[in-house]
Amino acid sequence: MDNQYIGKSVPRIDAIPKVMGKAKYIGDIKMPGMLYGKILWSSVAHAYIKKIDTSKAKNFPGIKAVITWEDVPRILYCSAGHPYPDDSPQDMYILDKKVRYVGDPVAAVAAESREIAEEAIRLIEVEYEELPAILSPEDALDEHAPEIHEGTKNICGENISQFGDVAKGFEDSNYVFEDEFRTPIVQHCPIENHVSLVYLEDDGRYTVHSATQVPFHLRRILSQALNIPIRKIKVIKTYVGGGFGGKEDVCQEPINVVLTQKTGKPVLLEYTREEEFVSTRTRHSTIIKLKTGVTKEGKILARQMDVLSNTGAYAGHGHGIVYSMSSHFPTLYPAPNTLFKGKSVYTNMPVASAMRSYGISQLNFATEAHMENIAGRLGIDPLEFRRKNLISPDFKCPNEYFIVNSYGLGTCLEKGEKLSNWKTKRNREHDDSSVTKKGLGMACFSYQSHTYPAVHELSGARIKLNEDGSATLFLGSAEVGQGNDTAMAQIAAETLGISIDTINVIAVDTDICPFDNGAYGSRQLFVGGMAVKKAAIKCKEALLGYAAKMLNKSPESLDTREGFILGENDEKLLSVRKAAMKAYYDHKHPITICFEEYFSPNCNPLTFGAVFAEVEVDTGTGKVEVEKIWALHDSGKIINPLLAEGQVHGGIFMGLGYGVSEQLLIDQKTGRTLNGNLLDYKLPTMLDMPPVDVTFIETEEPTTAYGNKSLGEPPCISVAPAIRNAVLNAVGVEYNEIPLTPERVLMKLKKGVTR
Amino acid sequence: MDNQYIGKSVPRIDAIPKVMGKAKYIGDIKMPGMLYGKILWSSVAHAYIKKIDTSKAKNFPGIKAVITWEDVPRILYCSAGHPYPDDSPQDMYILDKKVRYVGDPVAAVAAESREIAEEAIRLIEVEYEELPAILSPEDALDEHAPEIHEGTKNICGENISQFGDVAKGFEDSNYVFEDEFRTPIVQHCPIENHVSLVYLEDDGRYTVHSATQVPFHLRRILSQALNIPIRKIKVIKTYVGGGFGGKEDVCQEPINVVLTQKTGKPVLLEYTREEEFVSTRTRHSTIIKLKTGVTKEGKILARQMDVLSNTGAYAGHGHGIVYSMSSHFPTLYPAPNTLFKGKSVYTNMPVASAMRSYGISQLNFATEAHMENIAGRLGIDPLEFRRKNLISPDFKCPNEYFIVNSYGLGTCLEKGEKLSNWKTKRNREHDDSSVTKKGLGMACFSYQSHTYPAVHELSGARIKLNEDGSATLFLGSAEVGQGNDTAMAQIAAETLGISIDTINVIAVDTDICPFDNGAYGSRQLFVGGMAVKKAAIKCKEALLGYAAKMLNKSPESLDTREGFILGENDEKLLSVRKAAMKAYYDHKHPITICFEEYFSPNCNPLTFGAVFAEVEVDTGTGKVEVEKIWALHDSGKIINPLLAEGQVHGGIFMGLGYGVSEQLLIDQKTGRTLNGNLLDYKLPTMLDMPPVDVTFIETEEPTTAYGNKSLGEPPCISVAPAIRNAVLNAVGVEYNEIPLTPERVLMKLKKGVTR
Repeated sequence: MDNQYIGKSVPRIDAIPKVMGKAKYIGDIKMPGMLYGKILWSSVAHAYIKKIDTSKAKNFPGIKAVITWEDVPRILYCSAGHPYPDDSPQDMYILDKKVRYVGDPVAAVAAESREIAEEAIRLIEVEYEELPAILSPEDALDEHAPEIHEGTKNICGENISQFGDVAKGFEDSNYVFEDEFRTPIVQHCPIENHVSLVYLEDDGRYTVHSATQVPFHLRRILSQALNIPIRKIKVIKTYVGGGFGGKEDVCQEPINVVLTQKTGKPVLLEYTREEEFVSTRTRHSTIIKLKTGVTKEGKILARQMDVLSNTGAYAGHGHGIVYSMSSHFPTLYPAPNTLFKGKSVYTNMPVASAMRSYGISQLNFATEAHMENIAGRLGIDPLEFRRKNLISPDFKCPNEYFIVNSYGLGTCLEKGEKLSNWKTKRNREHDDSSVTKKGLGMACFSYQSHTYPAVHELSGARIKLNEDGSATLFLGSAEVGQGNDTAMAQIAAETLGISIDTINVIAVDTDICPFDNGAYGSRQLFVGGMAVKKAAIKCKEALLGYAAKMLNKSPESLDTREGFILGENDEKLLSVRKAAMKAYYDHKHPITICFEEYFSPNCNPLTFGAVFAEVEVDTGTGKVEVEKIWALHDSGKIINPLLAEGQVHGGIFMGLGYGVSEQLLIDQKTGRTLNGNLLDYKLPTMLDMPPVDVTFIETEEPTTAYGNKSLGEPPCISVAPAIRNAVLNAVGVEYNEIPLTPERVLMKLKKGVTR
Repeated sequence: MDNQYIGKSVPRIDAIPKVMGKAKYIGDIKMPGMLYGKILWSSVAHAYIKKIDTSKAKNFPGIKAVITWEDVPRILYCSAGHPYPDDSPQDMYILDKKVRYVGDPVAAVAAESREIAEEAIRLIEVEYEELPAILSPEDALDEHAPEIHEGTKNICGENISQFGDVAKGFEDSNYVFEDEFRTPIVQHCPIENHVSLVYLEDDGRYTVHSATQVPFHLRRILSQALNIPIRKIKVIKTYVGGGFGGKEDVCQEPINVVLTQKTGKPVLLEYTREEEFVSTRTRHSTIIKLKTGVTKEGKILARQMDVLSNTGAYAGHGHGIVYSMSSHFPTLYPAPNTLFKGKSVYTNMPVASAMRSYGISQLNFATEAHMENIAGRLGIDPLEFRRKNLISPDFKCPNEYFIVNSYGLGTCLEKGEKLSNWKTKRNREHDDSSVTKKGLGMACFSYQSHTYPAVHELSGARIKLNEDGSATLFLGSAEVGQGNDTAMAQIAAETLGISIDTINVIAVDTDICPFDNGAYGSRQLFVGGMAVKKAAIKCKEALLGYAAKMLNKSPESLDTREGFILGENDEKLLSVRKAAMKAYYDHKHPITICFEEYFSPNCNPLTFGAVFAEVEVDTGTGKVEVEKIWALHDSGKIINPLLAEGQVHGGIFMGLGYGVSEQLLIDQKTGRTLNGNLLDYKLPTMLDMPPVDVTFIETEEPTTAYGNKSLGEPPCISVAPAIRNAVLNAVGVEYNEIPLTPERVLMKLKKGVTR
């Protein structure tokens, strides 16, 4: 029979409360006696704190607590929401006596109102002993550079990985091409800024409401940073207004717990947009050198990539992101000889950490721009050049991280070629008299389904089949706006054979819900979806086992569908509701029906996609207008086409900003952020969004619940390089740095350089 | 090795929040926009409502809703928290156009403040068409009596059960004795009155905070009465200030849900003490006739009991309570020939329903007073007479309801005899010159461990072993002050081998917690305790299975204790904390550890006890002073001696009131309650409480978690008859009606009658 829910555009299960404005985000919660937290940020990039005078602030009416580094445990931790044991550099204190960037927390207050808190912050007097500030990754590596973290030489992480013999590969090549690429600092810009609400339960436990992507990692990191047992902390994630990786770090919760400890009151700590830009997390800016050796037939023999990644003042996920790049480097264009060298360095700049695709947007921009450059220089159609070197279905991953079980990349390219009318458009002649030039470009990618074997993978899911045949689905995985809970409910409904309207999702409360690593690495539907399916199968088996006795049939002869128990020839024998009620209230042998199951994958299938972009470049102003995007994805079976398409639209929007407008600018003398607000930071708006054509090339991934692969991060990956390649096609200039702002575009056009 | 927690006086796990005043009861909850509900009660005992004019109330400022019978679903239901299918008489509407007692709800309002609600209630004008009121059970059975519920002949329930040949039994007896006993209406008087808080979740579901003993039955009954699917209702039981059976009925929640439906706001509905007395539930008053045939050797050949039980205006548990009496009748003094006849009848009086011991306090008072009367008339020591006829360890229950697996009743009698110095005191001579007379009496009982096979029995329990080796224990069973959660945590801690301080109990939220019938029938520790043990065993097995791989040992060679994994010779190999963290974060094969298990018993072992009471009767005033109570209980293994002793103290206090002072008085013309307040209703105070000596005769019950049997209801059962028998011993008068108020005692003393 057909699927009832899998592959259907089921409306989001949280649509009504969200649309009606009834969904309570943390900032909407009011509690009796609630206080407002506020943080004093460092105004200097690198300094010791000589003295903090909090007396005026403490005496200010309505102030309930003022804390500095002297009030917090002296315990190092890492803010990255990584699994345990966390091999990330443990380089942060909740508050420290040294500040490492403009925006580092120095002190915090809790007050009866936001206004009082803001006023008190101004009354705290800090005396700094300034240190030289390092404001570029190159400076960080200077042997005389001061160390931002002692003993690190300013290196946060380093990765070298070689397969084959790269030197020989280059030797054997007919051509060797080299390019250097630069990617900017950007910020996630979720609708909801970082926010938490902390209070004490009557038994002395802490409840931490947090807009987090990683409730269980947050709980564990809080336990570490504050030296409080895990069992004394309960993390609740309610509605979250977007994460994109920025909420995969523990940015503010430890400070808020201390404020609650000091006051005994609920404390709401809500960042402003300006704080969000500077003092949460950003995407790593990178300098990437690529070197590629090609035969005269256009076959790549050797590839080398050198990455210098700027992680800012603290590690966060900095080391992990370079590691992620190293693991992905050999996948999209496998070559017999590859060498990856990556360094993540500390600077006195805002902290970079996880952001959608975890380094692969940077890697893919460089890779796909480089491929385009080579094709141009060789005079080969870039699509053809890619096809000569593209990953194939029988790919064997040299680092053994990834596997290809299902493969739709070839079809993505084919369909994109057709849809975008590639051949015609790529061969069009430019009208030299027109100030605007049209161009078509493309880029493609491969991506992971989750994070194993690089790191630990585990999702639990629990289903309680209730007396009325409805089901409660307990998830540890985090809905952060992407539609996780809806897709999981679809899997539960499909497997249980009941209506999705009768499924109630509870997620995430760390006390109540099963363990799950969280929303990152595009992992949830793959890993968590399988856990949901397993739990649903167990519940169904228990129900059918009971029903079989009632009906005097064998359990194997029964099935469920749309709330009914079906016999042979799909005859409706009994409603699930009646069977469940009878099972719970059987006079002699009643049963409860609730199972928790878990899934930890043992292979990581690659997911694929391609983006085709058409642009019009105004050579007078340098303005790049993206006129059309075709996005093609092999994400396996699509669980919910409507939500999936929404996910792709969001990714394109993010890639669009990355490609043409977004960049967080840091003053290179003071380390101050120059445009940390939504007026000066050029996030695209709906008016900038081109028409989008989304195509899913559905393949069937055998190692997951319903054939699905990842789609969380992938949609943003290849957008910027596709646009950049279209611009190259339009104006014949290789722009190797993004974003392609009018200024940057014009500069090269005016100079007449093409490379 | 010794037990770590079972049998230990572990402090209550909720002690600190309760003692510190931090425990939030429903009445403590404040919500933004919360409204206050109030009910208009019928002022007449029996009438049709001709007209209700709510216009003035509706127009009163601050009134948000006024509801009458026209605003509620016209669906019959029963308020009794019984398992499904509920064979209780379905005789109630949420609001009806007929009223059946003074105190029946007529209308309800929701207002911005309590004061506004009260004022608006006064503005509702009701026109009644009065009907004749039935104010005694005898009148109810008159063939010309008007029917309170159509088609019932005022009979709510009826039970006849005979074993052997009673007529022949009496024929074969040397003596036949007959007595008639009367027991009063009393009220549970929990510290916390009935209260609920209802609000709508953002997804349209109802959250019902209720001080209930039966969260899952409440959810199901609300679903029935309101025609709302079970899945749309979430019942939360937080702290509850006592139930004693009165919160086993659904008294006010349906009205409150309707008020929330009409207003869209949270509504708090909190009864006053006066409302609690009249409009919740009471204990059935009974008229019990007993007839006993005895051989000249003092052996009972035949027993007959006739019960007339007054259930008031609605059934509640009325039919079940007579049924309970019928099932228990043959147990304490098994005789070859027994006949039980019981009727529960409707009257226009406050509704009687479940109260601690569910009919057995009435049955036991009659039985034990009757036994004492017979012994006196035969001139046998009443202890000796009992021993001749007492239930024995090889008891075979004629109705097959109960079983004896563990037996300590003989020892209870022996020890009580010794402790109370029975022989000496019973033979003391009265000083005729003294106006005060001392007396010693006793009574004993047998009781159930739960309610199977009479009704359905099922408890679920779920344990989640967390990453830090702590455990979350999800219970569906209801802590209502008795210490349930502490005892369950002890079982979990003992079985898991971890510290009880690392166990966090979550109970009860029907969304989250496993199904459980609730707090009644003394069932929870027996049924639920086993479910907890089973879940703990599963968790332990999973943990040891993982640890065995870590340690390269066999799982069978490992055990846990006090947070450590032990190997041979109890060597501490590893902390549970470390093993759990490793299990969750194993790089290759991580696991989650959470299991829900259930238990449904297939036999119902009897529990036993005896009460010895010493009294001093002031023959001048009729005042009975209880000077000392010895309580002896065979409740199997005692899980927590301190809490168990507290339970016994509470039971004695309740039995004391039942015996000497408590009676809810109803005006026999109007049906109005005359003393429904704590000034006029004589609940004992601490000053009335005698010194109490509690002895547990510990036996080992093999069919339960840790040898435990019931102790919830038993402590109150035999107190009143023991006191009554002591008074008989003191003054030589057979008082066959309780309470033994000075007036009642004096009346017979003055008249000089002894029977």
